[in-house]
Amino acid sequence: MTKERIILGIDPGTTIMGFGLIKVVGKKMELLQLNELLLQKYTDPYIKLKLIFERTIQLIDTYNPDEIAIEAPFFGKNVQSMLKLGRAQGVAMAAGLSREIPITEYLPKKIKMAVTGNGNASKEQVAKMLQSMLKIKELPKNLDATDGLAAAVCHYYNTGKTVTGKSYSGWGAFVKQNEKRVKK
Amino acid sequence: MTKERIILGIDPGTTIMGFGLIKVVGKKMELLQLNELLLQKYTDPYIKLKLIFERTIQLIDTYNPDEIAIEAPFFGKNVQSMLKLGRAQGVAMAAGLSREIPITEYLPKKIKMAVTGNGNASKEQVAKMLQSMLKIKELPKNLDATDGLAAAVCHYYNTGKTVTGKSYSGWGAFVKQNEKRVKK
Repeated sequence: MTKERIILGIDPGTTIMGFGLIKVVGKKMELLQLNELLLQKYTDPYIKLKLIFERTIQLIDTYNPDEIAIEAPFFGKNVQSMLKLGRAQGVAMAAGLSREIPITEYLPKKIKMAVTGNGNASKEQVAKMLQSMLKIKELPKNLDATDGLAAAVCHYYNTGKTVTGKSYSGWGAFVKQNEKRVKK
Repeated sequence: MTKERIILGIDPGTTIMGFGLIKVVGKKMELLQLNELLLQKYTDPYIKLKLIFERTIQLIDTYNPDEIAIEAPFFGKNVQSMLKLGRAQGVAMAAGLSREIPITEYLPKKIKMAVTGNGNASKEQVAKMLQSMLKIKELPKNLDATDGLAAAVCHYYNTGKTVTGKSYSGWGAFVKQNEKRVKK
């Protein structure tokens, strides 16, 4: 029997959370869900965080994913935006952690590289490639929605096709490997 | 009948989470709990986040607090440390949000001011004042543990003694009120 894997990909942000789910059977990927949670209209930051948490829990309970992949930028313009981003990531992670689902995070460049073969690909290029891979009839107007799905696909390529468990193992490892890139 | 309020105060960090609980009956504060969760020994950042989330849920389910106060620094040395701090805050907030408990965050200076009357008070001064207010027999060796408790006391002073609901209502409001302090 071929094992089936379901991967939830999330791009948690403070104005939009893009998410996608794929089912992998053997070497075949199938799209289960591609959507976005719009957060611009909420001014209360706690409402935003609550919505991110609740939607992630809802996705987990509906699709029962085996793994979660998160798009997690490591660099940002300023400390305030990074604190806000960290909170958004934190609540999404809390949802996965509370359900005991392994989480792997990927840098945006790594995701672009995995999907298109080019770490500097545009949003349109990533979306077009996902459309072709997963036979998506119509792309969403807001291409930010595809970032979560791209993280899921990236995770599949990084675990299913190469050695399993080679995922990015956290801050310590990342900082060690990228000391020159880390501002002190 | 005098209404009773229970306040959970948390100082979530990536190396230590300090927490404290107070019960307020009328104008009298009573210490319920003062403790810390040590996280230094864990290298996996997800284990740390999971422990923060689980401990916060456990405290909520044990003490059934009416409100949560969080010590939340707004400024930090660099974007990486702020992202990590944001994640730690995010998982603690997710625990409160998942149980529908109102959260209020306070800047460290505001907490020091509320407890000692001096926004630049030392950790020792804050701890000594808490010891005297709450008749704590012995202070913990690690004074970081008292930061969570101090947030709970600050929240009581900012809601119980003055107008209720004057709590800091999030990023938007804070940034607006402190535009000069916010690095762009």
